[in-house]
Amino acid sequence: MKKQELEKVAGNGLINRRHLLGLGLGGAGMAVANTVLGQDLQIPDWSKAPGANASAYGSRSPHAENMMRMAGNPNPIYPGGGASRSPLQHLQGTITPNALHFERHHAGIPDIDPAQHKLVINGLVRQPLVFSYEDLLRYPMVSKIYFLECSGNSGAVLRQRDPDPNGTAQSLHGLVSCAEWTGIPLSTLLDEAGVLPEANWVAAVGADAASMGRSVPIGKAMDDSMVALFQNGEPVMPGQGYPMRLFNPGWEGNTSVKWLTQLKLTNESPHFRDETSKYTDTLPDRSSLKFTFPMGTKSLITSPSGQMSLNQRGIYRVTGIAWSGSGSIRRVEVSADGGRTWADALIDSHQSEKSLTRFSIPWEWDGGDAVLQSRATDSLGNVQPTRDSIIAEKGLITTYHNHCIQSWGVNSAGEVRNVYA
Amino acid sequence: MKKQELEKVAGNGLINRRHLLGLGLGGAGMAVANTVLGQDLQIPDWSKAPGANASAYGSRSPHAENMMRMAGNPNPIYPGGGASRSPLQHLQGTITPNALHFERHHAGIPDIDPAQHKLVINGLVRQPLVFSYEDLLRYPMVSKIYFLECSGNSGAVLRQRDPDPNGTAQSLHGLVSCAEWTGIPLSTLLDEAGVLPEANWVAAVGADAASMGRSVPIGKAMDDSMVALFQNGEPVMPGQGYPMRLFNPGWEGNTSVKWLTQLKLTNESPHFRDETSKYTDTLPDRSSLKFTFPMGTKSLITSPSGQMSLNQRGIYRVTGIAWSGSGSIRRVEVSADGGRTWADALIDSHQSEKSLTRFSIPWEWDGGDAVLQSRATDSLGNVQPTRDSIIAEKGLITTYHNHCIQSWGVNSAGEVRNVYA
Repeated sequence: MKKQELEKVAGNGLINRRHLLGLGLGGAGMAVANTVLGQDLQIPDWSKAPGANASAYGSRSPHAENMMRMAGNPNPIYPGGGASRSPLQHLQGTITPNALHFERHHAGIPDIDPAQHKLVINGLVRQPLVFSYEDLLRYPMVSKIYFLECSGNSGAVLRQRDPDPNGTAQSLHGLVSCAEWTGIPLSTLLDEAGVLPEANWVAAVGADAASMGRSVPIGKAMDDSMVALFQNGEPVMPGQGYPMRLFNPGWEGNTSVKWLTQLKLTNESPHFRDETSKYTDTLPDRSSLKFTFPMGTKSLITSPSGQMSLNQRGIYRVTGIAWSGSGSIRRVEVSADGGRTWADALIDSHQSEKSLTRFSIPWEWDGGDAVLQSRATDSLGNVQPTRDSIIAEKGLITTYHNHCIQSWGVNSAGEVRNVYA
Repeated sequence: MKKQELEKVAGNGLINRRHLLGLGLGGAGMAVANTVLGQDLQIPDWSKAPGANASAYGSRSPHAENMMRMAGNPNPIYPGGGASRSPLQHLQGTITPNALHFERHHAGIPDIDPAQHKLVINGLVRQPLVFSYEDLLRYPMVSKIYFLECSGNSGAVLRQRDPDPNGTAQSLHGLVSCAEWTGIPLSTLLDEAGVLPEANWVAAVGADAASMGRSVPIGKAMDDSMVALFQNGEPVMPGQGYPMRLFNPGWEGNTSVKWLTQLKLTNESPHFRDETSKYTDTLPDRSSLKFTFPMGTKSLITSPSGQMSLNQRGIYRVTGIAWSGSGSIRRVEVSADGGRTWADALIDSHQSEKSLTRFSIPWEWDGGDAVLQSRATDSLGNVQPTRDSIIAEKGLITTYHNHCIQSWGVNSAGEVRNVYA
């Protein structure tokens, strides 16, 4: 086939998205003789005999079982403290399967019997209430696709002076996932209890052994917070708070208290242990930022990414995810020359508020060095910052809320590595 | 608490959706004393010691494991022929978890090694092509949330002269599910092969032992058909066509050929075995409808539904799903008196094209007889028909494409049963 003239849209190989990938360039789509229904191809064994019967509960192909969360070793000092990270470099689209949604636990995963679990609303309300799981199933619910991100996600990219050469999309940024969450608007339950005028905060407490507590301003609670009972259609998994969790769309994950058992309306925040000892952003001038809730405008190239390798020159699909805790994703730009020139990526999915959005752009790798970056802009005009600008602003003492641009270096051997640029 | 005056919106207990469920009516949200953080509640054991550590692959709570697909017994005459049905009455939102997505197989589930699998495009093209799985991963992809429904779903509701009193949402209608599908637009691959002007059909063949084949008109193929590689973010499961399937949004499920291995461009349809012996709608006048692709405008109340029971009078959340193979859902109405009066339901989710949409409405059950129904209208103005009108039009010889209104009868004991009304 004739080699097309490729329209360049930015430096170092970014090409117009109308170009079809593989068109005589990358070896994809090998030309073959036009025989009827491919009779020159060998019929594989799996076409020759019936396969397995339908089942009650599906499972993945053995060939796809390498897609696992990365979970740390059990913590002997801090039992149940830990996290598992989503395999972002292997996923496509925007939805994370429930079994691969990231986890972050402060005292492990309790095994809760929903028939014994209670949700209490008390404090500054006209009428304290207690709800069973069965009670809550009778309430109005809404279903929305939202990302969830740990406040500490991507922290290592700030914390480590030198870039981890083994870092992957999963190891560096895997504490973000996305699901369709179904739950009761928190405002519905609070209205039923009757919030008193002096109530400014909702103090939410989980039933795990950490008694994880977080304070949510009443404005958020009455806006889009929900008591989530279902995740991608089925009950939330134990690692996500079964039988119920608070869900604060767009906010740092720890505020979406799992195994939710109490909501106490208060005038002042109780300053829970976990929101003072953790999740406070200490600054170089000895001041601290507290209650820094929304996650920043952010994007990440998931392929090519750390520890992948390009086997030959040619056209690749550069793809990734973008999100904002404050709105929807309006634009994603990609650079192949470390941020000197940029081109608009194509948006390949929905662009819902506070959810992941999938982007891509074709890129022709010429066999030389390259630094791939992506930069998101949200519906409010917030633009994803560079690592240097975050460090200039906040220093290196805190590493929460890191939403800086990620750089993936490609060398002439085709190896892709985490770099700072 | 004081009992509110409920604004009625249709007969037999349908009330305005602004009414909060449980507000002193149904016993939900029991009033309690306002003690600090509920110290009068007994602290459960699971709050007293750390729980399980984070894991590499999540699983459901043991308390939620009753949510299973309903799979028939293995078929001794027709090995691998069969289906499994989604537990619609237990699911919420719109997304179906991959392990619970319905299946329909004609020769079981082949175990395919993606490294050995090929996709051939041949026939009336300028250049026949063969693609490996790795090749396809480099192509542009899009991600969209689409329902998938078997052509034979809900057939028993037409076929059986008397309603099955044991019928459930799952047993009667469980051959519909919904996922975010990620794949390569079929037009991209066909453009690369170069479709000749005389090509009217794309003949798609699967790699299973049934050699399942379906003919897709070139118009659909160039519109929104895709070669789907991922489902809710992860590779399609074996029961859904791993490593790849055709996906024709809104069309009867069997056209979305699983384990896709060949796409042959033809002038006339090959009239594959499965599209003549099956999936032809035979009519009472001895004529037949062939190539009846789009699924109808349809809705279904999933709760309350068959084999559920109402334990006490009071307010219930009536909820269900609606979809259309031709557009998005514009409106869902609900009746509690067998279709005499109707009220608009609330839309609780996204209303994307060719996807499930979640609806609900509060209903006060007064302890008497009721017949619950839902009726969908899509963005083109198509209205879901009654069972009687479908029988009047198409007779009872064919039961494909049944999208009639489902009726759930409630008796004074609170038992919910499949009925015809």
